[in-house]
Amino acid sequence: MPHQKRATEKPRLRPLRRFSENGEERLEILDQTCLPYRKYWQRLESLKEVIFAIQHMQVRGAPLIGVVAAYGLALGLGANASDRSMNAAVAALGATRPTAVNLAWALDRMGRRLYPLPVAERAAAAWREADAIAEEDALQNRAIGEHGLKLLQAILAAKPKSGRDNTLQLMTHCNAGWLATVEHGTALSPVYVGREAGLRAHVWVSETRPRNQGLLTAWELFEAGIPHTLIADNAAGLLLLQGRVDAVIVGADRIAANGDVANKVGTSLKALAARYCGIPFYVAAPGSTLDFAAATGRDIPLEIRDDDEMRFVYGQDKSGERGKLQQINDASAIYNPAFDVTPAECITAIITERGVCAPNAAALAALFPQKAGGDHA
Amino acid sequence: MPHQKRATEKPRLRPLRRFSENGEERLEILDQTCLPYRKYWQRLESLKEVIFAIQHMQVRGAPLIGVVAAYGLALGLGANASDRSMNAAVAALGATRPTAVNLAWALDRMGRRLYPLPVAERAAAAWREADAIAEEDALQNRAIGEHGLKLLQAILAAKPKSGRDNTLQLMTHCNAGWLATVEHGTALSPVYVGREAGLRAHVWVSETRPRNQGLLTAWELFEAGIPHTLIADNAAGLLLLQGRVDAVIVGADRIAANGDVANKVGTSLKALAARYCGIPFYVAAPGSTLDFAAATGRDIPLEIRDDDEMRFVYGQDKSGERGKLQQINDASAIYNPAFDVTPAECITAIITERGVCAPNAAALAALFPQKAGGDHA
Repeated sequence: MPHQKRATEKPRLRPLRRFSENGEERLEILDQTCLPYRKYWQRLESLKEVIFAIQHMQVRGAPLIGVVAAYGLALGLGANASDRSMNAAVAALGATRPTAVNLAWALDRMGRRLYPLPVAERAAAAWREADAIAEEDALQNRAIGEHGLKLLQAILAAKPKSGRDNTLQLMTHCNAGWLATVEHGTALSPVYVGREAGLRAHVWVSETRPRNQGLLTAWELFEAGIPHTLIADNAAGLLLLQGRVDAVIVGADRIAANGDVANKVGTSLKALAARYCGIPFYVAAPGSTLDFAAATGRDIPLEIRDDDEMRFVYGQDKSGERGKLQQINDASAIYNPAFDVTPAECITAIITERGVCAPNAAALAALFPQKAGGDHA
Repeated sequence: MPHQKRATEKPRLRPLRRFSENGEERLEILDQTCLPYRKYWQRLESLKEVIFAIQHMQVRGAPLIGVVAAYGLALGLGANASDRSMNAAVAALGATRPTAVNLAWALDRMGRRLYPLPVAERAAAAWREADAIAEEDALQNRAIGEHGLKLLQAILAAKPKSGRDNTLQLMTHCNAGWLATVEHGTALSPVYVGREAGLRAHVWVSETRPRNQGLLTAWELFEAGIPHTLIADNAAGLLLLQGRVDAVIVGADRIAANGDVANKVGTSLKALAARYCGIPFYVAAPGSTLDFAAATGRDIPLEIRDDDEMRFVYGQDKSGERGKLQQINDASAIYNPAFDVTPAECITAIITERGVCAPNAAALAALFPQKAGGDHA
């Protein structure tokens, strides 16, 4: 089994650590606001710290946000497991980020598991349930990788062999790799699974202004030994129009019933350009990203974030310390939406843990009938 | 005449100054690498300083590069006006930036004017010819603005009046305003001319990574009192898909015979998205941007610039000094193309000083027959 073999070869690449210490359950996260400059494990010890970490994007990525919120609830219940405390914790966690639906999904699942239990049993059960969500996320992402790899292998097999380029040229946006999930990632899972299967791939990585999650993608690809090149977000059109990209693959924060996909702002520009160029555009996401309560993308709330994310830029100064500079002056008006919606018709297919799916209501409902039926299991 | 009236009301907005001092001809440019943080007039006193200023983008924008190169030749001829010296100066200036064709056009015009003259008369004639090119640029841009304004007025007139938004919503990319030309700009000229005519307009301004020329656009719009909002390049798709943009208008660095347009990298993403959304996409450029020697965009050389433009970011530190931070580490591979080519079929029309033109070979040749005929006058 390649999965087991790999695990013995090198430690798993995960952005969170779970362990027990002196009888206490512990959670640590890789603080993504320190990356790519510094690899810093931040211990989260309270509900409040988890809320702060999600709001300030120390953890980010739709699947990871859901998992960490579940752990946040466990931390909150450790302090007070009453119904009232739990209601407040679920509400506060649910309000941290509005667009990713995995957050609401994870909290809903935790609530259905925990409310029926006696108060004294809730905290321990919450840790177990959060652990279960985490391990399921890793397994689901692995399955996404296996389904996606078949698509990528077919694209590479169909690529003319005449040129010097016998490598699959992928383009991604934002960060939907192992850093954005418990393990493997979503959009990048086919690349990581493919690496074990001998797939030769190179990834074009967009910076993803204003938060530069592309630098996280470059960092995690480097950690995994996958060839990649950073580009400005603006350069995607040139590469697509010149035919230097074989497929675009991105993650999702929320998928509407009709297949419209909310994802990091800038995703739609790549999708519309890929459509014009006849280049396949894939969305890779677990079933927990589906929101059949949103009929179309218009029903998905899109987070507008603080102007300061654009106004200030970050990096290392000459002494290697993290520095901050003001790029845009105080007087300038700024509009800083964090997400956009890619129309379903611009998406070639959605890659889920259950298989590859056309981006339309019938196909999504057929693959996830229990979600379509209103049972949010 | 509104033109004269405006001139008496406020000083002209120009990025270069020409004057005589102690019998010497002088040239000063607004150093665009200091903007938007500091307004610094840099005197250029030699051919070498002009070459440095163009290469390092202290002056930028296709029309302005052409004009400043003409002045650079005048400075060079002031030192040595022999054929050999002039050949070397033309070659060195021509090699500073490969994509903008106005550069080659201006140098070609200077050469045709100056080579026939006696050596002793060349320097003075060069200053006069460069001044003529500069004044023609200003007049041409004014004409572009007048033609473009009619298009914009028609779009605003056709806009449903029911909503709260009775303002024309424009989107632009990079900087093709007065800072990029001698005066008025190209893409933004209709806005400046429109301001005098009472046009209500708001401009969505893309940052334009990696060089952030959008910050220059915001700065020059602020100087001119035009409402505007900065967005990350990634946010353009959201605004277009949500129907919050009435027209996109950009400049051009080179236009091929078939109407393909080379412009700042990222332009094509906006054009492809506008096409999908049914939103008009205009290119505004003077005839000197046309290159009938390039049959299509494939024949246009596209400049790839240094990785460090992406690796480092700039801004003001807390003390107001210009600071530099390393955003991307040394190990990361970077690809930094400065331009892309927008296919002619994605362009609604090209706005020139001679009128508005369909983006195809026949229409362009009909408007500029002497260029199509091979006479580069």
